[in-house]
Amino acid sequence: MNPNPVLVEVLRGGAVESMHRGAVAIVDADGRGMLALGDVSRAVFPRSAVKLLQALPLVASGAADALKLTDEEVALACASHNGEPAHVATARGMLAKVGLDADALECGAHWPGLDTATRELAAQGQAPGPLHNNCSGKHAGFACLACALHGRDGLRGFFGGYVGPGHAVMREVTAALQAATGADLAHAPAGIDGCSIPTYAIPIDRLALAFARVATGQGLSADHARAARRLRQAIARAPFMVAGTGRFDTRVMQALGERVCCKVGAEGVYCAALPERGLGVAIKMDDGNNARAADVVMAAVIEALLNLGSDEAALLRGLSAATLRNWRGTEVGQLRASKELRGALA
Amino acid sequence: MNPNPVLVEVLRGGAVESMHRGAVAIVDADGRGMLALGDVSRAVFPRSAVKLLQALPLVASGAADALKLTDEEVALACASHNGEPAHVATARGMLAKVGLDADALECGAHWPGLDTATRELAAQGQAPGPLHNNCSGKHAGFACLACALHGRDGLRGFFGGYVGPGHAVMREVTAALQAATGADLAHAPAGIDGCSIPTYAIPIDRLALAFARVATGQGLSADHARAARRLRQAIARAPFMVAGTGRFDTRVMQALGERVCCKVGAEGVYCAALPERGLGVAIKMDDGNNARAADVVMAAVIEALLNLGSDEAALLRGLSAATLRNWRGTEVGQLRASKELRGALA
Repeated sequence: MNPNPVLVEVLRGGAVESMHRGAVAIVDADGRGMLALGDVSRAVFPRSAVKLLQALPLVASGAADALKLTDEEVALACASHNGEPAHVATARGMLAKVGLDADALECGAHWPGLDTATRELAAQGQAPGPLHNNCSGKHAGFACLACALHGRDGLRGFFGGYVGPGHAVMREVTAALQAATGADLAHAPAGIDGCSIPTYAIPIDRLALAFARVATGQGLSADHARAARRLRQAIARAPFMVAGTGRFDTRVMQALGERVCCKVGAEGVYCAALPERGLGVAIKMDDGNNARAADVVMAAVIEALLNLGSDEAALLRGLSAATLRNWRGTEVGQLRASKELRGALA
Repeated sequence: MNPNPVLVEVLRGGAVESMHRGAVAIVDADGRGMLALGDVSRAVFPRSAVKLLQALPLVASGAADALKLTDEEVALACASHNGEPAHVATARGMLAKVGLDADALECGAHWPGLDTATRELAAQGQAPGPLHNNCSGKHAGFACLACALHGRDGLRGFFGGYVGPGHAVMREVTAALQAATGADLAHAPAGIDGCSIPTYAIPIDRLALAFARVATGQGLSADHARAARRLRQAIARAPFMVAGTGRFDTRVMQALGERVCCKVGAEGVYCAALPERGLGVAIKMDDGNNARAADVVMAAVIEALLNLGSDEAALLRGLSAATLRNWRGTEVGQLRASKELRGALA
């Protein structure tokens, strides 16, 4: 098997110091490939890049409407957030709407993803809990879905063990993922995600197809098509909730609104829906690098596929061709999309 | 050019999720290659992996003896430390010996590399200074070298601008690097390191040769051979100083003492001297990943090249074939040296 191409280069003093290989699929809702760079048939764990797909039942079940979830709350259900105070408060509020609290969450605890949020928490003498976990909004969304499936009475008991693949909540979530991607998840390689729910390996081009379906509604059930639209709109209106301060998803969607619905996942996975183009995008970096690999590729993809105003173009170019500085602020190099990637996208 | 081989694999649920490519050179002091896996002729920025070579003038000049530097101080001059209180205090003490303080350092400031050290600093309402920079010991060593070159009078003025390639201090440091590696640094690709000093791209097999010379003394001037021995001994006696809590270099040298002298560098570089084998090792991961790529390769190399007791073997195997757990502590996968790497080392 040929190795995947180099998609991102890291330069120091004009020389390439490090490089990142990966694969990119861009397809329409009929599954027609617009770009297949690298081995896009490889099955990869999509991790958090498919949180929007996993949130389809939250809306399609009627739970989001019944509980009057706000745009912020719906967006947080699709988030890998920074654990900033607003994220934590919103997740807490979602749980309160179904009579639960942080103790019901099975995602585990970790310090906030944003350094300054971690230092503020430490400065207050506090330690992180499950609400600080970047997946707490997704899990709070699962609690809301559980309420729709079961009702409020005895919800805590019903909800317990929801991260297991056989639980009623997780069966709904997995069925939505299977329907959107068309992948046979019962026979896919399975693993356990960072937040303890199952994750299934899905071909990269199938992930792109799922996001083309999210972009267009085409190929989804009517309920899921409506849910996808609601999720996209909520994220576009509350992009801070899906990530947070300084993060790619937040910055790009603050600038582009509903034109892009993108979501990063661990281990260098990135997915996006581009409604005006009717396209879905899926990226997997071989080495699992997000911040300086998958992000750069996604920026170059968005630059190539959308007509951007000058401010938007400057934002995206700053992400796909970034100046690197050292601790003293001296310019030391560049992070950039490779010529091979730019050429394939041209 | 053929891509470098996969040296490290990251598994989730039994499937390979991500992988890391790179090159490894193992040579003796005559430059005879014992292993050349991947493109070992590629010139790479060695970054902090060559701090021991950059510290040769500190000892060879007589500065370390004249200033009565302790093993801890000499080791810290070769360190990429965690910014823990003991590291900060030791760097401060070195500067005090030549009448300088943190204001003389040109390395820039960053929060400690160890999360708990950062949170403790934040909890005390403090911010990091240049002494917390992982390179502060190296820079304090430069100050000691400057004192030997210039004397104490007007040292602050003489030392100013020491990170520039033309400064007397940096010329000594670069000359030592050139002598040890045999590389022509005047014509090598040059960049600026994270701590603002120059970094020069050097072929991987030449870096391995330099560490074979450190291991044996062979091929170095008599002064540098003695200095290399002193540096190796100081690091073996004070391995906490070269890295810190939880770090590979500290843990492995605490266990193996003078049998291994290893040093990580940014962007997936790793070098080591193995005195009892008379060998030098140099590793560069293509994607620049240290913690879960270069570390794993170095652990597999040490396992293959040294006869280890059972405790030592267990420590190294835990680093070259590690169980991965999620935020809840559930086992989710494995991090391991690839079959290709193990096979090449067998």
